[in-house]
Amino acid sequence: MPLWQRQEIQALPRQAELNGTPYPTLIEDAGGLLILDQTRLPHAAVMVRLHTAEEAAHAIRSMQVRGAPLIGVTAAYGVALGLDHDASDGQLARVIDLLAATRPTAVNLHWALARMQRVLQKSAPQGHFLRGALATRCGASTPGVRRDMAWHEARTIAAEDAAANAAIGQHGLRLLTLHQRKGAVLHIMTHCNAGRLATVAHGTALAPIYAAHAAGIPVHVWVSETRPRNQGLLTAWELAEAGVPHTLIADNAAGLLIMQGKVDLVIVGADRVAANGDTANKIGTYLKALAARAHGVPFYVAAPLSTVDYSSPAGHAIHIEERAPAELGAGNVLAINPAFDITPAHLITAIISEHGVTTPKELAQWKT
Amino acid sequence: MPLWQRQEIQALPRQAELNGTPYPTLIEDAGGLLILDQTRLPHAAVMVRLHTAEEAAHAIRSMQVRGAPLIGVTAAYGVALGLDHDASDGQLARVIDLLAATRPTAVNLHWALARMQRVLQKSAPQGHFLRGALATRCGASTPGVRRDMAWHEARTIAAEDAAANAAIGQHGLRLLTLHQRKGAVLHIMTHCNAGRLATVAHGTALAPIYAAHAAGIPVHVWVSETRPRNQGLLTAWELAEAGVPHTLIADNAAGLLIMQGKVDLVIVGADRVAANGDTANKIGTYLKALAARAHGVPFYVAAPLSTVDYSSPAGHAIHIEERAPAELGAGNVLAINPAFDITPAHLITAIISEHGVTTPKELAQWKT
Repeated sequence: MPLWQRQEIQALPRQAELNGTPYPTLIEDAGGLLILDQTRLPHAAVMVRLHTAEEAAHAIRSMQVRGAPLIGVTAAYGVALGLDHDASDGQLARVIDLLAATRPTAVNLHWALARMQRVLQKSAPQGHFLRGALATRCGASTPGVRRDMAWHEARTIAAEDAAANAAIGQHGLRLLTLHQRKGAVLHIMTHCNAGRLATVAHGTALAPIYAAHAAGIPVHVWVSETRPRNQGLLTAWELAEAGVPHTLIADNAAGLLIMQGKVDLVIVGADRVAANGDTANKIGTYLKALAARAHGVPFYVAAPLSTVDYSSPAGHAIHIEERAPAELGAGNVLAINPAFDITPAHLITAIISEHGVTTPKELAQWKT
Repeated sequence: MPLWQRQEIQALPRQAELNGTPYPTLIEDAGGLLILDQTRLPHAAVMVRLHTAEEAAHAIRSMQVRGAPLIGVTAAYGVALGLDHDASDGQLARVIDLLAATRPTAVNLHWALARMQRVLQKSAPQGHFLRGALATRCGASTPGVRRDMAWHEARTIAAEDAAANAAIGQHGLRLLTLHQRKGAVLHIMTHCNAGRLATVAHGTALAPIYAAHAAGIPVHVWVSETRPRNQGLLTAWELAEAGVPHTLIADNAAGLLIMQGKVDLVIVGADRVAANGDTANKIGTYLKALAARAHGVPFYVAAPLSTVDYSSPAGHAIHIEERAPAELGAGNVLAINPAFDITPAHLITAIISEHGVTTPKELAQWKT
């Protein structure tokens, strides 16, 4: 059977609604794990099967899956895939290292891997070395138990992501209601894709927009192209699928539109929020925050708490991923391609998480 | 003879240096007018012959020639081409209307056409209606005289553009010398293309950079891609031709680089400067100005006085060109494509013109 037949599956029909979305970004089936290959959107909606941790790592690195929450969930499933044929401690460590090395900035990746490690260390398979107290507390188990626990934990992380984003949508909906002027369309600018495609369900920045649209609030979304990877086209695609009015713009146009009073508020997602509220998000976010501040337009960050990195005290501590200059598509021209920038907390009006709407300073209260 | 042979000429060899540049953007030859087709750069350097005012208008509209100063010069030559077979008052009015309708924001276009009209009205051909005082003052002349005057005036505008930009280069060089720290590379960010390709010679924003490079000051230029038309690739191309070190970035990366202290100053060109110093320039300029101000980085506008529109009191009076959404290349996605934005005067450290370096407020002194 040729490779593409083995690996590719046409996107599920619309009827197969999963997690409240008309298309899945990541699903389990009897054969294992299927992901929607986002590098082929919006031209083709194709599901790709992941068989191994290596394939999961490749999917994250190549941005077949992207968006901090979805990266985290994919990494968790990647651990489960990696333990399918060898559930030893050594393999667990190898798989986690492999997945951790894919992308440095999105903290959900590292959060999910740390959680998988914590849970799975408690279920070391028989015959393997157990470290002191853990061995006493947990006892030994079979490789099958550890494998099952890995799949179960990945599934739990996915479900929690969907639930957190649903809550973000509801908290954000109340916020949007406050911004709405009777009868007027609410014009919301976003950046990159922090929608259903960036998560298991609902999205982060787009969750409040979907909730508002469902509640009958007239919304219109300014969608930035988001060079160099053009994730704005993903946002336009999923908004079109959901019937939400939107207009694509070049990233460069954000300042003019905000100056012209055509933007009521900005909502973006996040790849890592530092303890002080400084936020790493897709490159170009900072420029939008500056323009919003210059014209008194509220600037919101929507992210689940799994995106908050309390070990990074401030933005300067966040590692900014440098991606291949070839992504700019400029041939032999020397280029650099930082994938994220830092928006300082003082430019962020509020952060919308599953716990509600808080100022960046109030983030500390949720530290566990 | 096939069309392409008639219309296209391989770029002149390097030895044919004209106006101090290794490649011409616009030259006269025995057959009339040749332009470098910038829509084909950087892949191919091809000269195209313009035969008529209609072809000149098309070249401006389609951005075969672009950059406010070069648009002005091309329009002046377009008038001359338009009078070649009919130098009547009616034809003059038609040609000027045709060329004026090509692009609304770059004021050099309208400045050059007004100048051509002023000069050529004084030389109405015999047998045509002469308005009152003009007829008395100038007398009638032959169509040949008006044609010759048109070519002469276009040539004069071209020569003045080259001279103004050379002066901008020298004034800017002194400014860069002030910014240079001994032994350190001076990192300059620009936007769009305001180089040799945007002018007859030297460039505007790039003129000081070329002058500094020639003077042995180590410079490095951050070149923004400049979506949606990617004029950054033109800037990278001409900087490479001149051996000036440079690095391409996505427009979105400007804020991060400025925040990281990797930018010593920003220099951009202008399409129209209002009387109060507010500046219309390529979309995205405003975002760079905001980032520069946020981090105390000087932000300079380099433009000849022909770009100052004293009849626009402030930025809000400047008509922003809306170009075809198809330029974003996003298929059927609804898009808008404003081509310019307004940088308020208060964000501009100084304006570099042929008269020197002045604050935006001091612009008024040069009003004629």
